Amino acid sequence: MSTTPRRRTAKAIASPWLAGGARVDQREKKRQAVLQTAARLFNERGFHATSLDDIAEKLHVSKPTLYYYVKSKDDILLECVRTALAMMQEGIAEVRQRGGRALDQLQACMRSYAAIVMDDFGQCVIRIGEDPLPPPLKKELRRLKAGIDHEFRRLIAEGVAEGSLTPCDPKLAAFMLAGALSWVGRWYRPDGSMSPTQIADQGIALLLGGVLAPVPAPSSSIALPKLGRRAPRKTAT
Amino acid sequence: MSTTPRRRTAKAIASPWLAGGARVDQREKKRQAVLQTAARLFNERGFHATSLDDIAEKLHVSKPTLYYYVKSKDDILLECVRTALAMMQEGIAEVRQRGGRALDQLQACMRSYAAIVMDDFGQCVIRIGEDPLPPPLKKELRRLKAGIDHEFRRLIAEGVAEGSLTPCDPKLAAFMLAGALSWVGRWYRPDGSMSPTQIADQGIALLLGGVLAPVPAPSSSIALPKLGRRAPRKTAT
Repeated sequence: MSTTPRRRTAKAIASPWLAGGARVDQREKKRQAVLQTAARLFNERGFHATSLDDIAEKLHVSKPTLYYYVKSKDDILLECVRTALAMMQEGIAEVRQRGGRALDQLQACMRSYAAIVMDDFGQCVIRIGEDPLPPPLKKELRRLKAGIDHEFRRLIAEGVAEGSLTPCDPKLAAFMLAGALSWVGRWYRPDGSMSPTQIADQGIALLLGGVLAPVPAPSSSIALPKLGRRAPRKTAT
Repeated sequence: MSTTPRRRTAKAIASPWLAGGARVDQREKKRQAVLQTAARLFNERGFHATSLDDIAEKLHVSKPTLYYYVKSKDDILLECVRTALAMMQEGIAEVRQRGGRALDQLQACMRSYAAIVMDDFGQCVIRIGEDPLPPPLKKELRRLKAGIDHEFRRLIAEGVAEGSLTPCDPKLAAFMLAGALSWVGRWYRPDGSMSPTQIADQGIALLLGGVLAPVPAPSSSIALPKLGRRAPRKTAT
């Protein structure tokens, strides 16, 4: 072993102890595995029906080992919810940065949101809801959700202004679009017949374009701009 | 007082004890008040944060009095959920009995469903979810929900067949429509700016008609049947 302090943590030396940085990485990796496993069990069995013992068993570790990474079951839920909301915010920020037409941004936001509610952490937010969370986190969750809702409303209002969306109440429209997508987190099953991408693409097309059948063209073309509706853009969804 | 047994319970005789039938009615009335008060508190504060003491206090009765009407907090939730699901099933049965076009039936079902998820009991089903329910009731709840979902799918498939709805996957469309409406039960506040009827009417119009803006008529009328979409029927929604 080299005596140079600088080289003591060099990769070439096989040490039974991990170097500082690697140790932190390993710990974070294991912590993530605890959270992911817990989230999946919460979604499968329900939050109340899942115990720390169940989580430990699934990870082949003891319950005391679990306590090295998380404080409690509530703490796990809190972290799962925070992770999902951070993912949602990142998704929105990315879409915003790319810019473009409001309709395209709205579609991209909806795709990002749909993907997250079908993810383990996102499903936790939707399925478990606010109820078991402590009041401060409930408040934080509401604040973060309000931010996401605000972004949907802004994009819908801009879509109406740019003429790509039909004049509507952006608040109600945002609730309807995000609501339908949120509910996906309730019914989605990884072993179902459709992939998350298929659900998102087809679901968003239905939400944007509606389900009413096209009407045959009336003889006068004057009434058309009000009756005709744009078919969902297959390339964009 | 008359000695004729037949007249002992006649209305004219003022008795401090209520007659058999009236006693049952009174008990049921009080039981309903317990359930309604509890449902409202669950929705306002959360199921876990609401105690039997809170419910008793709100009703100006003692906790032992409460136990005369309900067995436990879980029992209350169970009854709230059962009441809401029974309302949903009745709503669907009524629509079915009236008959008519599948699109009109679908709109009527959506209106009935929306009204119930904004009601105290309906909100319980949506906000609290399955998680705190005991396994047998979870199973019953899923069975009843599946029945409602089945009705939505059937009407959508029939709407496509009758030409009023655009060809789509009835399963996914049912999940999207019912999902958006279910989510209303999460965000609806009785003190909000819109009435339940306004939310239902405008929300259903957005879901059926979509949010995309009408497109100007192309010069050739051949492409119109595929591009044009029927605007939401204002008379029916």
